[in-house]
Amino acid sequence: MVAEIISVGTEILLGNIVNTNAAYLAEQCALLGISCYYQDVVGDNKERLAETVKAALGRSDILLIGGGLGPTPDDLTKETCAEVLGRSLHMEEKIRESILAYFEQKGMPVADNNFKQAMIPDGAIILDNPNGTAPGLILEDNGKHLILLPGPPKEMTPMFEEAVKPYLAGLMPGTIYSKMVKLCGLSESQVAEQIADLMEGQSNPTIATYAKTGEVHLRVTAKAEDEKAAKQLVKPMVKELKERFGANIYSTETETTLEKSVVDLLLANKLTVSTAESCTGGLLAGRLINVPGVSDVYKSGLVTYSNKSKHRLLGVKKKTLEKYGAVSKETAEEMAKGLAGLTKADVCVSVTGLAGPDGGTDKKPVGLVYMACNVCGRTRVKEYRFSGNRAKIRDCSVAAGLSLMRECILEYYSKEIFG
Amino acid sequence: MVAEIISVGTEILLGNIVNTNAAYLAEQCALLGISCYYQDVVGDNKERLAETVKAALGRSDILLIGGGLGPTPDDLTKETCAEVLGRSLHMEEKIRESILAYFEQKGMPVADNNFKQAMIPDGAIILDNPNGTAPGLILEDNGKHLILLPGPPKEMTPMFEEAVKPYLAGLMPGTIYSKMVKLCGLSESQVAEQIADLMEGQSNPTIATYAKTGEVHLRVTAKAEDEKAAKQLVKPMVKELKERFGANIYSTETETTLEKSVVDLLLANKLTVSTAESCTGGLLAGRLINVPGVSDVYKSGLVTYSNKSKHRLLGVKKKTLEKYGAVSKETAEEMAKGLAGLTKADVCVSVTGLAGPDGGTDKKPVGLVYMACNVCGRTRVKEYRFSGNRAKIRDCSVAAGLSLMRECILEYYSKEIFG
Repeated sequence: MVAEIISVGTEILLGNIVNTNAAYLAEQCALLGISCYYQDVVGDNKERLAETVKAALGRSDILLIGGGLGPTPDDLTKETCAEVLGRSLHMEEKIRESILAYFEQKGMPVADNNFKQAMIPDGAIILDNPNGTAPGLILEDNGKHLILLPGPPKEMTPMFEEAVKPYLAGLMPGTIYSKMVKLCGLSESQVAEQIADLMEGQSNPTIATYAKTGEVHLRVTAKAEDEKAAKQLVKPMVKELKERFGANIYSTETETTLEKSVVDLLLANKLTVSTAESCTGGLLAGRLINVPGVSDVYKSGLVTYSNKSKHRLLGVKKKTLEKYGAVSKETAEEMAKGLAGLTKADVCVSVTGLAGPDGGTDKKPVGLVYMACNVCGRTRVKEYRFSGNRAKIRDCSVAAGLSLMRECILEYYSKEIFG
Repeated sequence: MVAEIISVGTEILLGNIVNTNAAYLAEQCALLGISCYYQDVVGDNKERLAETVKAALGRSDILLIGGGLGPTPDDLTKETCAEVLGRSLHMEEKIRESILAYFEQKGMPVADNNFKQAMIPDGAIILDNPNGTAPGLILEDNGKHLILLPGPPKEMTPMFEEAVKPYLAGLMPGTIYSKMVKLCGLSESQVAEQIADLMEGQSNPTIATYAKTGEVHLRVTAKAEDEKAAKQLVKPMVKELKERFGANIYSTETETTLEKSVVDLLLANKLTVSTAESCTGGLLAGRLINVPGVSDVYKSGLVTYSNKSKHRLLGVKKKTLEKYGAVSKETAEEMAKGLAGLTKADVCVSVTGLAGPDGGTDKKPVGLVYMACNVCGRTRVKEYRFSGNRAKIRDCSVAAGLSLMRECILEYYSKEIFG
């Protein structure tokens, strides 16, 4: 089975929006084991859309067509696909009623063009849209499958998850099962080196590598006649990865972020946390506070960008700042210790570094970052050398700060327990 | 002139990366007044790439082809395009030498496949690549223009700016000139309402609206025989927008961000700033600290997510927290005033709100946010009601916080000056 992704929308052709839908659908196809050789973008133009659909029907089995299902005259994906397949449209009473109910509830009059959304090509499978008014559609025709989806991601994604994914899975012989193994504290090349033997000549399961800022994700995918058998193939490979990477694996759940794994670790050990940031300027705190429920563990954060505030708020000695500089392991250490004294949190992490673009020297280049983490009185300081622009260096620092917190908490507890 | 954007890369078809290059090139074409009816994505496959190039040549004048110019056998964009046009490749001595020099400098041996990058289709215009080893190419053929660009954005973007943009501008009759007008503190619909009459029946200049989080950007574009004439067309429209939107316009420079405009305003008035954040948890500080040179104005930031830290660090009264709650205008005001007392900054801004997903009530729903801004002793408090998920509510809050700072500083100074 070969899929093709067709995105319909003038706003994509004008570059007003980035086509994230295509990336999402492409990844979902890959996960389902469906090959995808082409993606197309075309505007809200009947002739050009028809030409694109015809070309796609000539070379692909599944057409995932997104956008152009709205109520305005511009929206003509449904009409065009019906025409290409030689089908008529009819008024679908159930959809008409739900549109009436929707507007009645809002106390708004229904414009005639709203009923356009109730016109459905004959023989179409209708997909509910709980997040909007345009239903999705599946048109089956001579072994081809045209799947029409709404354009807005918040409507498209849930519809794909709930209705389209099981439909596509049903078209594929066998079952695909995959498990995500998420790592932190190692570079992409370090990870690649350690799994080179597993990657070589892999067939079933396979490992795919995704490099993220400060993280590496490995997706282990297997194919078998049913889910149980596919899981059996994935299991030993995940076990092998766990043995090789140990504590560098922070989660095997797709939806668990690095910050959530840190917050979970704090919650599980009943630890509180505070942050003191210079070059990251609040972004590390900001990422921890992404996690709902963080209020049970997060005490306070300080953004001490200037030397004065490092001294005044955190008690970093003036002498330390003069002798070693603001970007030094000594300053990082005093920041973390000062933070612990001030906020009494169990875990206190500090960041100080040069994010650039200016201010670098031969000895202290842009990208040099020091972080300290104090867990219940024990402090570890680490030096990092990141590359890239200001934003990149700051993002790398935040990810490294989260990794450092994990590492220090885990080590503290293993020492407490084992020696 | 009609352009078509062809992106070559298996990583896009697999959904491993989002195709931001296509959005960039599409926007650039729109800015140059070049229409774009199709975008295509195809993998590193000779047959399918050739088919796509042929189809594009049949319907478009300019082909912007990105990716597949590297040294590995996978990379075959150059070879395929040459074949479609019936041209041979030759070794370009100058490029061969620069590749040799590049590796010599790195002290690395040159692999044979590196010289693949010095093989150039006959008659091609060569575009320098100061950020990588693969040069760009322009192939002119029977009134068609094939422009081959490297895939990595950090190589592609500068090459486009420096070489391709002037080349394309030269193909277009007349000159396009555009000016960006960036607004904050107004919603997209408020802006749309106020310019409805200008948008209606617009032809030259035109206004395009771009909605960003907490911001609206208006691009005014005109076309004329030369730049001077185009500028003359744009000028009165920008003036009209300035009259209508006044202080809501924070910049008319494309590269100036909202946070930079705030930092510039602080610098110009020799003001210092501090932040105290609850629901945004450091993101407002983080965004200010995006701006290089912020160290001259930024004093310190506090992340006071818990009630305890609001009381302990900022001196918010326990009674206030009990009676009005942490999400209230009273708490926001005391946070800003406490921050001013603690850090002695001229501008002190505080944020407290419900970012969800839990914790909302009928009276205080998720999305309710209060912000206070204290400028040299005068405090203003504002209530906001944002919608969306946790991340969206926090992003909206950060943008609104920046707008509020601007508003309060400007007002303070107009009062100081005018009475």
